[in-house]
Amino acid sequence: MQTLITAKSNEKIKAAVQLRDSAKARREQGMFFLEGARLCADASGSVEVVRLFYTSKAAEKYCDEVTLLKERAAESYEVSEEIAAKLSDTFSPQGIFCVCKTLDKTHYIDKIYSNAKIVALENIQDPANLGAIARTAEALGIGGAVLCGCCDVYNPKAQRAAMGSLLRLPIITVEDMGLAMKEFEGRGYVTLSSTPSESAEDITVTPLGEKTVCVIGNEGNGVTEKTAMSCMHRVRVPMKGRAESLNASMAAAIIMWELMR
Amino acid sequence: MQTLITAKSNEKIKAAVQLRDSAKARREQGMFFLEGARLCADASGSVEVVRLFYTSKAAEKYCDEVTLLKERAAESYEVSEEIAAKLSDTFSPQGIFCVCKTLDKTHYIDKIYSNAKIVALENIQDPANLGAIARTAEALGIGGAVLCGCCDVYNPKAQRAAMGSLLRLPIITVEDMGLAMKEFEGRGYVTLSSTPSESAEDITVTPLGEKTVCVIGNEGNGVTEKTAMSCMHRVRVPMKGRAESLNASMAAAIIMWELMR
Repeated sequence: MQTLITAKSNEKIKAAVQLRDSAKARREQGMFFLEGARLCADASGSVEVVRLFYTSKAAEKYCDEVTLLKERAAESYEVSEEIAAKLSDTFSPQGIFCVCKTLDKTHYIDKIYSNAKIVALENIQDPANLGAIARTAEALGIGGAVLCGCCDVYNPKAQRAAMGSLLRLPIITVEDMGLAMKEFEGRGYVTLSSTPSESAEDITVTPLGEKTVCVIGNEGNGVTEKTAMSCMHRVRVPMKGRAESLNASMAAAIIMWELMR
Repeated sequence: MQTLITAKSNEKIKAAVQLRDSAKARREQGMFFLEGARLCADASGSVEVVRLFYTSKAAEKYCDEVTLLKERAAESYEVSEEIAAKLSDTFSPQGIFCVCKTLDKTHYIDKIYSNAKIVALENIQDPANLGAIARTAEALGIGGAVLCGCCDVYNPKAQRAAMGSLLRLPIITVEDMGLAMKEFEGRGYVTLSSTPSESAEDITVTPLGEKTVCVIGNEGNGVTEKTAMSCMHRVRVPMKGRAESLNASMAAAIIMWELMR
């Protein structure tokens, strides 16, 4: 089925834009929006593609991806360049867009509480950081992520930075990170909270267990005191230079690396 | 001296925009453009501020930074909100902009070839990656960076990602990275090139010397074969997950961490 959409007022286009821009719409509808040939094609291996939108140029240039997506999407629509510009929030759109179903995360709970090395993210606000941390976590082989108070994982900027990792990595969201840490501890995990504070233990000397979870905190404020109090150790990445220079996703990369090393 | 600039055709504004947008203009004029309260104030501790532009709102909101910059800048100009919007390449401009003199890097050569741990960047094309790597290098205490074929260090996006690190870290640019590696080897360094290839040594088992330099390559293509041939070892960050998921700046962070660990 190939219908050409050229009217900006088309209901399906308006719905897609809403999913792109509103976390509330994504939550209520259980769907999210993705843009880009590679990202959409990758996602189609992890989530259900409800709608595909593509330009005729994209169908030529990204023939493999569009063919794959057309097979997998429940509905496919060709759109004009003008519509593509409206759907895109990048400077040079590739002309491929998907609306997908969000994942049911409940089946991850057992996985998260049994995989050996877990990262916990508290109040990470920048979608690009959330995505970059997930991407690195997957690359290093971290078993999953526990989120509390973070920005929406289906935010298009987070998805772009994650290159699909946010759809593949086991992720659960919790209401109370302190409680989650106690749950981990009860299951035999070493629980860590990270901080730039000099008084914390050097992560290279902290004895890490077979099973370890480490909390990484907000970009500006770090891990909340309440959560840190619920963890067994406070650890830091020892710095020889200007400590304030290490950003959240870089610090997270080094901590996850140490967990896996 | 406080002159209010309101005309977009003002020569000083046009010159600043040119420095913002053109690497060629920066090179020819030996000056570059910076935006943002913290970034400009930080930079004024490292480089000569030729001109300061600020809005009256910024002078109130960022009083400390504007006061400091006015003391340090050779010339200061108040600008209208309209001019600020023209100067800015961000969505929500803070209304503080500087034109600064580029650094003479020649005096860094001795430092680079004698500091213990050095990172070498070959053909890094994304200014945000270049800035992020410099920021992490400084945080971890890396002694300096050797650049070959990279994007311009004075690119505003690189400067923003670096948070001043590109102005503080000793950096030299070379024409031939292979020759530079031989120079390091002659001075007693262990020279490494990084690669995602499985055939390379695991960086956690490679014997690193007191003095070590590691080359990190282009985002897509890695280190050139010619440069890799000039290094003593090929090293990789061992992955347990999807190797293609580790981006250039994250891989660089882990490698620099291992050099300093």
